Amino acid sequence: MRLEYPYRTERFGAVRINELQRVIEIDCGARTYDDQPGPSRVISREALQDIERELAIVVPCMNESRRVIEGVLSGIPHDCLIILVSNSDRSPVDRYDLEIGALEQFCRLADRPALAVHQRDPGLAASFKSAGMPELLDDAGLVHHGKGEAMLVGMALAAMTSRRYVGYIDSDNYVPGAVHEYCKVYAAGLAMTPSPYAMVRISWHSKPKVRDNKLFFSRRGRSSEVTNQFLNRLLAEYSGFGTDAVVTGNAGEHAISLELGMRMRMAGGFAVEPFHFVELFEQFGGVLPTRHAEVMGQGVEVWQVESRNPHFHDNKGDDHVTSMRTQALNVIYHSEICPPGLKEQIVEFLGDQSPPRERIYPAVGTLALDRLYDAITCESETFKQVVQRLPARVRTVTPLQRT
Amino acid sequence: MRLEYPYRTERFGAVRINELQRVIEIDCGARTYDDQPGPSRVISREALQDIERELAIVVPCMNESRRVIEGVLSGIPHDCLIILVSNSDRSPVDRYDLEIGALEQFCRLADRPALAVHQRDPGLAASFKSAGMPELLDDAGLVHHGKGEAMLVGMALAAMTSRRYVGYIDSDNYVPGAVHEYCKVYAAGLAMTPSPYAMVRISWHSKPKVRDNKLFFSRRGRSSEVTNQFLNRLLAEYSGFGTDAVVTGNAGEHAISLELGMRMRMAGGFAVEPFHFVELFEQFGGVLPTRHAEVMGQGVEVWQVESRNPHFHDNKGDDHVTSMRTQALNVIYHSEICPPGLKEQIVEFLGDQSPPRERIYPAVGTLALDRLYDAITCESETFKQVVQRLPARVRTVTPLQRT
Repeated sequence: MRLEYPYRTERFGAVRINELQRVIEIDCGARTYDDQPGPSRVISREALQDIERELAIVVPCMNESRRVIEGVLSGIPHDCLIILVSNSDRSPVDRYDLEIGALEQFCRLADRPALAVHQRDPGLAASFKSAGMPELLDDAGLVHHGKGEAMLVGMALAAMTSRRYVGYIDSDNYVPGAVHEYCKVYAAGLAMTPSPYAMVRISWHSKPKVRDNKLFFSRRGRSSEVTNQFLNRLLAEYSGFGTDAVVTGNAGEHAISLELGMRMRMAGGFAVEPFHFVELFEQFGGVLPTRHAEVMGQGVEVWQVESRNPHFHDNKGDDHVTSMRTQALNVIYHSEICPPGLKEQIVEFLGDQSPPRERIYPAVGTLALDRLYDAITCESETFKQVVQRLPARVRTVTPLQRT
Repeated sequence: MRLEYPYRTERFGAVRINELQRVIEIDCGARTYDDQPGPSRVISREALQDIERELAIVVPCMNESRRVIEGVLSGIPHDCLIILVSNSDRSPVDRYDLEIGALEQFCRLADRPALAVHQRDPGLAASFKSAGMPELLDDAGLVHHGKGEAMLVGMALAAMTSRRYVGYIDSDNYVPGAVHEYCKVYAAGLAMTPSPYAMVRISWHSKPKVRDNKLFFSRRGRSSEVTNQFLNRLLAEYSGFGTDAVVTGNAGEHAISLELGMRMRMAGGFAVEPFHFVELFEQFGGVLPTRHAEVMGQGVEVWQVESRNPHFHDNKGDDHVTSMRTQALNVIYHSEICPPGLKEQIVEFLGDQSPPRERIYPAVGTLALDRLYDAITCESETFKQVVQRLPARVRTVTPLQRT
């Protein structure tokens, strides 16, 4: 993979937000260029390979057609571990069953392993409860609906496998080649980071939409513009300089080192993506006291990369967009570091409505992973280990203390 | 890259037409699996790399937007040599000039070479004439308009560079990840071939179309169905068994070893793609006498691979489809090996019209390549060698005799 160098880097305490870098070449060939710095940054195939072996790709999935899922799976590089977290309907047709069928068939042909679980499996809920995160459960005693929750479950499973990185790929992507590029971008960003605390967020090249029976390649998402604008205002409030640094506030496509991810609280629903920034600023921004001195010392690297591929996906409609936008503003508003002036602007933007609080969960690192593993393998009926079993060696880490 | 094994292989003399194979994984990881045959065929990264270093990718281009071209270039693996053959308008705006600008900018950033030429450059026409192919010129003394002609020019340039393979990528592809996959498929097919005579043809997974303001993923091209049907009838006439083996009669996306390509005549316009099959059957089908005993001994391998990516491209309209279909039937009709019964069916299909002859050019191998090189570098004003110069070593082969 070959990327532009970022033009600038914006700092917020220990957080380094690199401005947008474009992908120049999806495949950079056999040379590594390690010895001769050129006009662009090359991340060699070997470097990507080393990351991919440690990268779990979580695919949150809800009622997607089998064909689309198969395409997504085919784009995930072989050495990455696939983790499917489904919240699909189980009646009248058991769509999770169809998904597992597709996953097993693919993994058999491709000779690779995968994990899968259904988000609303009572055994999964019980496992998270016993591992120390009862907050994840709703009134019905099941894991909350929501994308953020699926991502949290996926990260916990990834942590159990002892992989070092986790990336997310939406299951509604019509272009396997885009999935492939996103995974390569993840590996590239993670490989570029000297510190163990890294996040890679993808900005789509464009999002094609059908208008008047023609394709139009829109550059900006309707929700992202607002989210990015308010996150940049938050940055500017502290630096005193207006900025456009944040361009991936709603990036569903992102990857993170587990060393970082397991220290971060996660938001539920669609608040999960913008909350990443808020949480980074709160934890490592130097404004509030942090309990992670080791992170403050080494710093957190945030890469924002513009893909070459357009993002062709299912059109979820206008309600979805409004809901994403609102949830983003809610988490900014309720952050401890949101200054009163910015709060007023948010209320004004929302038409003088007071933003509700989003669900915020403790960091995955606070889970007792060994207990989670035992409980999931025993109690979760939908938990599948396709082709191969999990390594017996579960990541044994001392759970972080709850904040 | 990981592919299905082909289910069957259809033979026509020395030509082996492998039935459709699907791509299972775009990226097969670091393992080579050379020692343990699995449920699918793995072509290792190293094997692909060896081919890519010998592969020239020809991009025929006509009035494409700069953004789309940039995307296409970004998807071509670094080690492949890019050859742009443009037939874009040169007035009122000189679009070729814009294209060269984009190409140079990309190559500078990506630190890689490229060649480019304009199809209607008088110097190019003179070069082909002096190298022994006056047939390529029209009444105005310029290289004929047409896609086949652009492909022929591209193959001749590729041969001049001493690369061993040439692949074609249409410039109107909206999905860089698809371009990337096509190139990997080319390399995979060429790597799978023990004989030096190989062709790889791509069948698109689907072709999305806008209908009633929604995307519909069509599986079959309107033109391909007819072309494939008549090519399969031609096969069946000789084998006595009906077949569906040919599924890539109109495959614009294909690659070929120059050992094979330089021995094949090429058709002009959109007849170029179906004519490949007709020419293979004529030259190596064992029906007509061949002057290529070496090819007959080793056999010609034709791979047909279904991509994972959909083919999103510019909608060229219905005239284009009809014209492609008609040109395909014209070349089948006028083949020396087309039996009278099939000729009747074609005439009937065309509404009792007698099919005109398409332009058929001598094989690129009949060109005096050293003379072509000297003439192009001296006389062609639009010929560009971007970043790096052509290797001084021009392919020196004794031109084939004209048929």
